[in-house]
Amino acid sequence: MRNIDVKELAGKVAAGDRRALARAITLVESGRPDHRAQTAELMAALPRPARPALRIGLSGTPGVGKSSFIEAFGLMLTEQGLRVAVLAVDPSSARSGGSILGDKTRMERLSRDPRAFIRPSPSQTHLGGVARRTREAATLCEAAGFDVVLIETVGVGQSETVVAQMTDLFVLLIAPAGGDELQGVKRGIMEMADLILVNKADGPLKETAMRTCADYAGALRLLRKRPQDPEGYPKAMCVSALEGSGLKEAWDEMQSLAEWRRKTGHFDRMRAEQARHWFEEEVRQGLLARLTEDRHARVRMEELGREVAAGRAVPIDAAARMLGELASIPKGHGGTEE
Amino acid sequence: MRNIDVKELAGKVAAGDRRALARAITLVESGRPDHRAQTAELMAALPRPARPALRIGLSGTPGVGKSSFIEAFGLMLTEQGLRVAVLAVDPSSARSGGSILGDKTRMERLSRDPRAFIRPSPSQTHLGGVARRTREAATLCEAAGFDVVLIETVGVGQSETVVAQMTDLFVLLIAPAGGDELQGVKRGIMEMADLILVNKADGPLKETAMRTCADYAGALRLLRKRPQDPEGYPKAMCVSALEGSGLKEAWDEMQSLAEWRRKTGHFDRMRAEQARHWFEEEVRQGLLARLTEDRHARVRMEELGREVAAGRAVPIDAAARMLGELASIPKGHGGTEE
Repeated sequence: MRNIDVKELAGKVAAGDRRALARAITLVESGRPDHRAQTAELMAALPRPARPALRIGLSGTPGVGKSSFIEAFGLMLTEQGLRVAVLAVDPSSARSGGSILGDKTRMERLSRDPRAFIRPSPSQTHLGGVARRTREAATLCEAAGFDVVLIETVGVGQSETVVAQMTDLFVLLIAPAGGDELQGVKRGIMEMADLILVNKADGPLKETAMRTCADYAGALRLLRKRPQDPEGYPKAMCVSALEGSGLKEAWDEMQSLAEWRRKTGHFDRMRAEQARHWFEEEVRQGLLARLTEDRHARVRMEELGREVAAGRAVPIDAAARMLGELASIPKGHGGTEE
Repeated sequence: MRNIDVKELAGKVAAGDRRALARAITLVESGRPDHRAQTAELMAALPRPARPALRIGLSGTPGVGKSSFIEAFGLMLTEQGLRVAVLAVDPSSARSGGSILGDKTRMERLSRDPRAFIRPSPSQTHLGGVARRTREAATLCEAAGFDVVLIETVGVGQSETVVAQMTDLFVLLIAPAGGDELQGVKRGIMEMADLILVNKADGPLKETAMRTCADYAGALRLLRKRPQDPEGYPKAMCVSALEGSGLKEAWDEMQSLAEWRRKTGHFDRMRAEQARHWFEEEVRQGLLARLTEDRHARVRMEELGREVAAGRAVPIDAAARMLGELASIPKGHGGTEE
């Protein structure tokens, strides 16, 4: 990663060079301050894609069949000639060794498809860090000419919100289950979904899946209508990744919805809002990074932290002192040692 | 809240004055910069309690009977002559109108008990904000001489981690359920628990509760031993808030564990680590607050945000420019307008 010609790399990515894309993603995943600076350059040098890719967020708790769905859905898209990138946001991957997408064999056929590009979740313990990298990776895939960028996440905690903030459509994948299960899906996540897909609508579970689907459809009708939705959305549908049924219908719905949003301007408005949010988040992360990147700040944090731990200062008071000293933070990475 | 004599307020809180305690908590819950400064003064002026209270974190998903448990458990403690404070961390309360502790009638008898003090979760949309206030409120209750400070949270997302970082013991309350349910409790949360209490071990659910308890006890044995645990911990036990059974036993366990940790030094070490974490968190929050509190920073964030939203700048590049300008951040709340 030494002496990268960022402009050249940007050009290769934009030309659809897969190896360049992989290298560019490796660069954005690096936490090194000099790599962060190069990432900023790279992102600024990327040409805008002629037509933005459709970014689809996909969430679902473990066991609903996310990998099988992505494999079947992705292959259907590539068979239509579309180029599909699959990324993941999994803040737990550092600990668990990657519970999602960690193993490409989970999507064996798709990973061998020349029109598909699969990248596991970056190893970061902090959700903000994962989000940052994935957002940049998605932009790189878009610049590389992928038509669909699928961003997978596990259905726990705040990762859905993070994924919804970087995608054009949000799909919630659920398993067929009894009526009680409905309560298990947090209201906030249902409110984010554009499409709820009940997977495993095959074999002995088919009837249960249809009932579950009807339950969700009913629940969705009770939600307040959102400005970004035409009549009849969000929707609930049955799919079977195993048999391949419902996948085409689901894709048709996604396209109709995206098309409606493009026409009405919601698509661009959502992207603009997301870009603004991304900018603000970058500023916040960059500001916090100075506490560890700047040598003087780091040393003082250590010293005051020890005082507090020893009971010689109360946390909030020591923090006020530290903040006072931070009145003028050395620019950029002045004191960095790395 | 004008012209508060912070020293006097600290003295009254330390003397156990309930109205002063309530006023002090209202002060720490305020987001106004001048109130934050007074909060820092107040916290620094508080005398150290002779013996620290036992801070107990309590988590459980909606429906496991957290309120009934706190009511029954709290009354048992006050009958023993102990003073009990109940606080809550519920980042969703701003939206949902307070799903936990929002209504004191949920713990009707305990809320009328002169030895008990119940305070609902502060209204904040941001978990960090709720955590900050609750941490300070817990310290105030401790200074006011409460023997037990119970901090309740809902069993979703990151709020458990936040509560575990401000308590001495972490108790997970669960409902009796089939074996499959075990998978529903995230491993990370089980790893945080010192005691798992299976509630509703009464009437027709008693047997299921005992089986569930055995399942959890088995699962706990598979976890790696933590340095802060004596042999046999963490434990799983059955309780019934309805019948009052198991509460005394649970309290005995909590006391034994706390006593062991006090003797071995783990209690103080955990507190020291928590204080250090609190300090670091305060610095981070304070640094981020400048982006909105400082007038110049706020205006530039707005301007650059608009550029980004309009597509005239890419997020990461605009962020780099903003961070460059933030090289010297005006001290404190110089440009504040409030």
